[in-house]
Amino acid sequence: MATLIAPSNHSPVEDAEALQKAFKGWGADDKAIIAILGHRNVYQRQQIRKAYEELYQEDLIKRLESEISGDFERAVYRWMLEPADRDAVLANVAIRNGNKELHVVVEIACVLSGEELLAVRRAYHNRYKRSLEEDVAANTTGHLRQLLVGLVGAFRYEGTEINTKLAQTEANILHESVKEKKGNYEEVIRILTTRSKTQLVATFNRYRDEHAISISKKLLDQTSDDFHKALHTAIRCINDHKKYYEKVLRNAIKKFGTDEDGLSRVIVTRAEKDLKDIKELYYKRNSVLLEDAVAKETSGDYKKFILTLLGKQE
Amino acid sequence: MATLIAPSNHSPVEDAEALQKAFKGWGADDKAIIAILGHRNVYQRQQIRKAYEELYQEDLIKRLESEISGDFERAVYRWMLEPADRDAVLANVAIRNGNKELHVVVEIACVLSGEELLAVRRAYHNRYKRSLEEDVAANTTGHLRQLLVGLVGAFRYEGTEINTKLAQTEANILHESVKEKKGNYEEVIRILTTRSKTQLVATFNRYRDEHAISISKKLLDQTSDDFHKALHTAIRCINDHKKYYEKVLRNAIKKFGTDEDGLSRVIVTRAEKDLKDIKELYYKRNSVLLEDAVAKETSGDYKKFILTLLGKQE
Repeated sequence: MATLIAPSNHSPVEDAEALQKAFKGWGADDKAIIAILGHRNVYQRQQIRKAYEELYQEDLIKRLESEISGDFERAVYRWMLEPADRDAVLANVAIRNGNKELHVVVEIACVLSGEELLAVRRAYHNRYKRSLEEDVAANTTGHLRQLLVGLVGAFRYEGTEINTKLAQTEANILHESVKEKKGNYEEVIRILTTRSKTQLVATFNRYRDEHAISISKKLLDQTSDDFHKALHTAIRCINDHKKYYEKVLRNAIKKFGTDEDGLSRVIVTRAEKDLKDIKELYYKRNSVLLEDAVAKETSGDYKKFILTLLGKQE
Repeated sequence: MATLIAPSNHSPVEDAEALQKAFKGWGADDKAIIAILGHRNVYQRQQIRKAYEELYQEDLIKRLESEISGDFERAVYRWMLEPADRDAVLANVAIRNGNKELHVVVEIACVLSGEELLAVRRAYHNRYKRSLEEDVAANTTGHLRQLLVGLVGAFRYEGTEINTKLAQTEANILHESVKEKKGNYEEVIRILTTRSKTQLVATFNRYRDEHAISISKKLLDQTSDDFHKALHTAIRCINDHKKYYEKVLRNAIKKFGTDEDGLSRVIVTRAEKDLKDIKELYYKRNSVLLEDAVAKETSGDYKKFILTLLGKQE
């Protein structure tokens, strides 16, 4: 379930006018910006952007960028983009930042549905005049490249059929590959990049049944090169992406100085989807409310905005 | 340009009734079937199928399969399927027939546009409850697998921009890989599976400018394992698919006993697209009309049907 609280009806024109008013004078009225944009769903935000463009012949996103700054600006900017376009931007930034951020690409490739991932790839074409897989491949090599290109290129079958015999066979293949440091990664890559998620979850369960440890935990024992890290992220995202996101939030919050990029990414991309479930997982795991943890580690308008998306009532 | 001759208006109901009449009695009236279906475009055929289903509570394609047989049946069956569904069937049959037919998969992946290829992948899900890349990967290994999974997973950028510096760099990479028998295929695979077709053609041109031979000709000198064959087909399909199809037709016709599957595949899949251009290339290359060559090597209803799709007037 979502955390976003949005009214069932709103006037895009009135919202656009209120935003224009908030931009007037020296320094924007950030509170007004948050009160509006922090309470509108994706469709409503696109309508506001359109109304604003028609009223003032100006792109609302560009105007926002010039009015606000820092983490607040970055979070609002991402919130205002259409989801597929936002993921295209997130992927591109991650690729440009080198291997340490490739988990963002893995997230997008493994958490989204087939059609959602295709929408991101279309948005990537429009924005960067290249394909997502092109940039991924040009910035990686070896097994890491094979895995990532396979993941972003996947268009998985989404039926609920499970082949239990296949799950057994492929759990064995995963076991054989993972138990040695230098395993047969070709087969691991094939399985992870082409099987349906339902089938993969069955395979991961089979693995756990036989080896009394989950494959993702087993992988943590391995050398933590970039390939293994990506593999680990892919398995976690496919197996249970909400649990995965809970951990991203946990790490972002406990990090010295707080990882605002990670925090914003999860909250902005999941607020309209399943952030409520992720919040519950967070509470279960940490015995602290996610809102309270976030409030402690952030400040100013950024804090207000993020807490609004988290569903905090004023 | 297309070769198919279809009326601008037709009555799906009348066509369905005429087909039902043609099925009556012992042995179908093949001439009537060809006169109707051989002169209807993809949209009209789907309308006839729908009208037939409504009138007789029976799938027209299934009925056709029971009424006719042999090469004629196979060609009509493929002709009646929606293009994306037909390509899904062609790919599946090719995969099941082992490595010697993988060029059919390469054709589909490299000749179709990005959105067309996605439509085939969707049709593959619907029909086989698995993904195309899943079946490709499970039936291949090594570089061949990497290349094919990359090709079917590609969603290439389709803008007309060309990066000439990149074309030069990557022509060099291709040269280095191809000149040795055991080259750096990883980079070749990366380039062929991720760059836009426009960019790739520029790269192939650069290669020819520098080495006075086209890269596809150069590849013919190599060991002709399955990987190199697939590579060769991919380059030819991306570089000039009409020229490629002309050669498929030429080989199908000159083969002892004629390769009806190859012949039907090209004629059925291109009749509504660019078969006229392919016919012209055939005439230029062989100094024989394609219709005459086909007429000489085929017979019966199959011959009549194929010649009808080739635009032969009664």
